[in-house]
Amino acid sequence: MTVSSFHPPRRMLMGPGPSDIDSRVLQALGRPVIGHLDPEFILMMDEVKGLLHYAFQTTNQMTLPISAPGSAGMESCFVNLVEPGDSVVVCVNGVFGGRMVENVERCGATAIKVEDDWGTPVNLNKLEDTLKANPGVKAVAFVHAETSTGVQSDAAAISALAHEHGALVIMDAVTSLGGTPVMVDEWKIDACYSGTQKCLSCVPGISPVTFSDRALDTIRGRNHKVQSWFLDMNLIMGYWSSEGATRSYHHTAPVNTLYALHESLVMLKEEGIENAWKRHRRNHLALKAGLDALGLKLIVDEAHRLPQLNAVQVPDSVDEALVRRRLLSEYGIEIGAGLGALAGKVWRIGLMGQSSSPRHVTLALSALEAVLTDMGVSTGQGGAAAAAQKVLLA
Amino acid sequence: MTVSSFHPPRRMLMGPGPSDIDSRVLQALGRPVIGHLDPEFILMMDEVKGLLHYAFQTTNQMTLPISAPGSAGMESCFVNLVEPGDSVVVCVNGVFGGRMVENVERCGATAIKVEDDWGTPVNLNKLEDTLKANPGVKAVAFVHAETSTGVQSDAAAISALAHEHGALVIMDAVTSLGGTPVMVDEWKIDACYSGTQKCLSCVPGISPVTFSDRALDTIRGRNHKVQSWFLDMNLIMGYWSSEGATRSYHHTAPVNTLYALHESLVMLKEEGIENAWKRHRRNHLALKAGLDALGLKLIVDEAHRLPQLNAVQVPDSVDEALVRRRLLSEYGIEIGAGLGALAGKVWRIGLMGQSSSPRHVTLALSALEAVLTDMGVSTGQGGAAAAAQKVLLA
Repeated sequence: MTVSSFHPPRRMLMGPGPSDIDSRVLQALGRPVIGHLDPEFILMMDEVKGLLHYAFQTTNQMTLPISAPGSAGMESCFVNLVEPGDSVVVCVNGVFGGRMVENVERCGATAIKVEDDWGTPVNLNKLEDTLKANPGVKAVAFVHAETSTGVQSDAAAISALAHEHGALVIMDAVTSLGGTPVMVDEWKIDACYSGTQKCLSCVPGISPVTFSDRALDTIRGRNHKVQSWFLDMNLIMGYWSSEGATRSYHHTAPVNTLYALHESLVMLKEEGIENAWKRHRRNHLALKAGLDALGLKLIVDEAHRLPQLNAVQVPDSVDEALVRRRLLSEYGIEIGAGLGALAGKVWRIGLMGQSSSPRHVTLALSALEAVLTDMGVSTGQGGAAAAAQKVLLA
Repeated sequence: MTVSSFHPPRRMLMGPGPSDIDSRVLQALGRPVIGHLDPEFILMMDEVKGLLHYAFQTTNQMTLPISAPGSAGMESCFVNLVEPGDSVVVCVNGVFGGRMVENVERCGATAIKVEDDWGTPVNLNKLEDTLKANPGVKAVAFVHAETSTGVQSDAAAISALAHEHGALVIMDAVTSLGGTPVMVDEWKIDACYSGTQKCLSCVPGISPVTFSDRALDTIRGRNHKVQSWFLDMNLIMGYWSSEGATRSYHHTAPVNTLYALHESLVMLKEEGIENAWKRHRRNHLALKAGLDALGLKLIVDEAHRLPQLNAVQVPDSVDEALVRRRLLSEYGIEIGAGLGALAGKVWRIGLMGQSSSPRHVTLALSALEAVLTDMGVSTGQGGAAAAAQKVLLA
């Protein structure tokens, strides 16, 4: 086998993540590696913690990036808080709620599901009934922003209900962090994990997490050791704790990826998180106006739509995979396919982080209009880019 | 808090990893991100698998990088192969053997320890006695190259003993892969994990693993689900399997880190793995000659020394931390401290990957000689760099 260097093709990433990455972040990523115990690196780690406090809107001491993707961030929340014999209520309205159920069960605990249709948010009445019918559940887990459907659930209300019933709250904020408000302290979320490759526009591979003091107490009071050595927060905190002198080796941190996370969080701070939220909303509305012009519909009701993840219903008789392939090969634009129950039924257009820009909206709409027209699909009144522009200029 | 971009200081990495990284690999790392399901990315993944076959000297189908550091690579081997109620013999002669015990116990299994002094290899007689006394153990686990002590154990002999007793073999090759021979097929290793930030000179954060067909059968025949969803090889293979069309989403791969791994493996292929082994050996011998000139001793017997990790006994009454701090601040050279039982007693000088070069050997020796002399420590006959040069020119 002869293998040479890999040069990625030029893409515009408008799927469910990764999103496009600013050259500042790529340059930070490519800086020379230094040791994971180097005093200068440790100073940077402290800055990353401080910047994550800002991103999560929290003062939680235990706030840090897990050295693995969002799936491991999810697992870190479950394996640290859930023990064999516990019961956990899991709200399932998409792929990632289903994955939470897997996590609970692999901890030797019982998952009590509150199921809602894909494309709808978590139903608060069903959740309340379930909590009343199952006293003593350890935690309520839910996905704030379902990447598989584009739905946002009411995190504050879910958390309040859970706390009324004495349960901890575990929240998936993989797709929401940096794109829509994630108010960990205000909402009283006990454990929250996210990803870096969505609205933070950093490379994939690490997962910011935050745990409340109540969650910390639960971890300290466990009856069993955490089943994962790698994800045991007791050990991880020994490395990420703020006392430099006593910092102890746990695993080798992903040094360069942390450079990149640092830079992406500095950019978030420079923009201002409220401005980032507004930007995501404005570009979503522009995309929506363009989709309207093309006669294309979002599957999620307006009140629960995620601006950063737009699940578009594929028109009848359209070869959805062909459209995606043509966007990729002819324009270099990546959009996402449907997952699970929505496979073949939706396109997922991501407007996340650096991919939430007028340029992305305009090119994606124009390319989609051109491809659909060429395929003989009726595309409403047309003029998608112009329709989007009206929103952008408003 | 005002935070600005992070610019790492200039370092020469000669600790236990990370090692220095070639600019080719850093440039690959910093290339624009593309989707983890992009057809071009999937072709690159197939190349990475092929290159890992070469690095591990195996044809194992299940050979791929876990999307997390070596500690998670270790955990992937244990959680997939070990079930509650199993017994596993773990050879412990340093920090990482101890970590294996933690892994076994957190799987609900029993760890039967074969303990040897730190700085010595696994004792085959003790292992054999233990296997005879404990029929029916599921696996024998050992560390090929103990990063905490600089010892290499006899992998072929350990594996043969284990197989005689019907046990699977789990090998830690974090520090050996690319630096000394790792012959997965020839030695009949059933599960092997490594790191990228040692002799492969790639960034930290992912962990190459390989599983034999026998290991695969064991995983398929499990009675319990793997306790980690993130590390469940059944699911991971759905994403890394070679049939492109059926490739299924498991987690978002660390795209840019995989670019870097690809490039570092291309460089290994270009050099030739036998040449890489020879280079590590030659630079080690040069370092050894220089240490001799300084009157400094390695703690490991010559027969079991790792060329890539040199544990040097700290002379009596020397402030070992001060020496490391001075090397770092005055020369930008990072060497490692002792871990665990060897804390305060050794320096660990790594000559791994790109850090195994005459330039590294010469500068480290010269700086060490200068610092020790300045501190009033007697340093043998001196002339360390010249002594090393003799070996390099030989």
